[in-house]
Amino acid sequence: MTRILITGLSGFIGSHCLRQLLQHGGEIHAVSRTGGAAQDGVTWHARDLRDAAQAAEIVTEIKPDLLLHGAWIATPGVYSSSPENIDWLHSTTAMAVAFGNAGGKRFVGIGTSAEYDPHERPCVEDETPIRPATVYGKCKAATWLAVQAAAQHHGFSAAWGRLFLPYGPGDSPRRLVPSLLDALIGGRPIRTTEGLQQRDFIYAPDAAELYVKLLFSDVTGAFNVGTGAPSTVRSVIEYLAADCGRPDLVEFGAMKPAPGDPAVLVADMTKVQQQLGWSAPTTVRAGLDSVLAETRALRSHSANATHQAKP
Amino acid sequence: MTRILITGLSGFIGSHCLRQLLQHGGEIHAVSRTGGAAQDGVTWHARDLRDAAQAAEIVTEIKPDLLLHGAWIATPGVYSSSPENIDWLHSTTAMAVAFGNAGGKRFVGIGTSAEYDPHERPCVEDETPIRPATVYGKCKAATWLAVQAAAQHHGFSAAWGRLFLPYGPGDSPRRLVPSLLDALIGGRPIRTTEGLQQRDFIYAPDAAELYVKLLFSDVTGAFNVGTGAPSTVRSVIEYLAADCGRPDLVEFGAMKPAPGDPAVLVADMTKVQQQLGWSAPTTVRAGLDSVLAETRALRSHSANATHQAKP
Repeated sequence: MTRILITGLSGFIGSHCLRQLLQHGGEIHAVSRTGGAAQDGVTWHARDLRDAAQAAEIVTEIKPDLLLHGAWIATPGVYSSSPENIDWLHSTTAMAVAFGNAGGKRFVGIGTSAEYDPHERPCVEDETPIRPATVYGKCKAATWLAVQAAAQHHGFSAAWGRLFLPYGPGDSPRRLVPSLLDALIGGRPIRTTEGLQQRDFIYAPDAAELYVKLLFSDVTGAFNVGTGAPSTVRSVIEYLAADCGRPDLVEFGAMKPAPGDPAVLVADMTKVQQQLGWSAPTTVRAGLDSVLAETRALRSHSANATHQAKP
Repeated sequence: MTRILITGLSGFIGSHCLRQLLQHGGEIHAVSRTGGAAQDGVTWHARDLRDAAQAAEIVTEIKPDLLLHGAWIATPGVYSSSPENIDWLHSTTAMAVAFGNAGGKRFVGIGTSAEYDPHERPCVEDETPIRPATVYGKCKAATWLAVQAAAQHHGFSAAWGRLFLPYGPGDSPRRLVPSLLDALIGGRPIRTTEGLQQRDFIYAPDAAELYVKLLFSDVTGAFNVGTGAPSTVRSVIEYLAADCGRPDLVEFGAMKPAPGDPAVLVADMTKVQQQLGWSAPTTVRAGLDSVLAETRALRSHSANATHQAKP
């Protein structure tokens, strides 16, 4: 039976990937700092993968055939400039070397659109310059080079999925969509930029589907994990505000764009379509609709629970 | 007084850099595996910089203002595919972080033309795709990204000199020019390719001059370390063979080019010229002439020594 190791389970995309993996079967091992709840089909391991020695050790111990590596610093507001990114470069490289030494066959890592210098055009995997502006983007790009070096030396196959802007169930409350919904439902004003920057919002379960597809394929190289369909940030805000009946809460233009924020950061999905025959099944509207429905269900459930708890 | 740390002294370019540095003055510290001969103006330290802990420790101990980092695996025939490159990625990154933590101001590293995907055109620093074919090139490119991440986090200034094809005094006997001369002088046949590939041969003392100029400047980013003048490998062989009076020893076309060997690997020197006002002072002919003269002087000296040693 194929032995699969997945990391990054406390993260947003990792948990969706695990859900998808379970549908495929195989002997699944999952690593996170605290381990995980007992669950059919998964063996949990508690390790701090930021530590290169622990990261290499768990790989050597499990000897996976396939490794889907998502663990990395992802704390909103912190991750993009944190020096911890350098630790993740090192520990991921150590994992890739241990994976090669243990006879691993296929490594898939979670990269980022922040590796690109987008220059106002959709990002094409093997054409758009890799010129990352942030510490995060630099360390992710360095890691992909190091993984390729390990793959070349050890002869395993490797792919790298550069993730665009994920949203969906399990998203951090401090990220765009949950923080907007929290304000809209709570009746708090939203001061924002003009929101004209174009982004590639991808529904997290779709992104996970593509990562798992990459894991079970044999294509090598970097692949965008996006939809290929640009949305302005403004259109997302307007859609959510209208749905919540609170467009009055939004003040566009109240803030200036962050310096260096690219006008366009959108995936070109031609390579994924051609090599994997995959395109994102969920439109942004459909994805946002399901986030809205889920948010309302959770809030109504938690309101009922509060109500029922009253004496 | 400016405190300078230089590494890679057992290597080819490193020893030339040290010679140039001594002309500038400053408090110079040099690290190599075995230390070095006592010498005015240099404090030697024996450390194995391939070990990340030792590499970080020596930087923390010396607290250099300027760091010129050349140490890396360079064994001819081995370096381009060795997994040791991954260790150098890690230890260089650890040095860069320690350098930032110790208040370092300026980091210059030795990169390589092997980071580029040359596509038959001269390599332009910020245009030619970084798509290294070898483990060596991948790890060097990854290291430059990691150094930039550390520089961004710690606020030091960093530059990276991508070295083309150095030759000159101190070159390894297994590299192109010394091995050709050895065969030509020894009267042994040289079986080679057609030699039509264009390369950028740079005289090692010139390369060192540019590295030291980079170290004392404040320009940031990647810079080519070449001449900008293409030479075919054939023209170099023909020049040396003619000078030795042994063109008869050379059989062009006896070997096939190595797979993936680029047809053109030449530096575009516009950025260096514009930002540093530097161009290589030594033409290939002048450089080869001085290697020829030096080789003859050494051989005649060693022949005399052998002669005198006879009873």
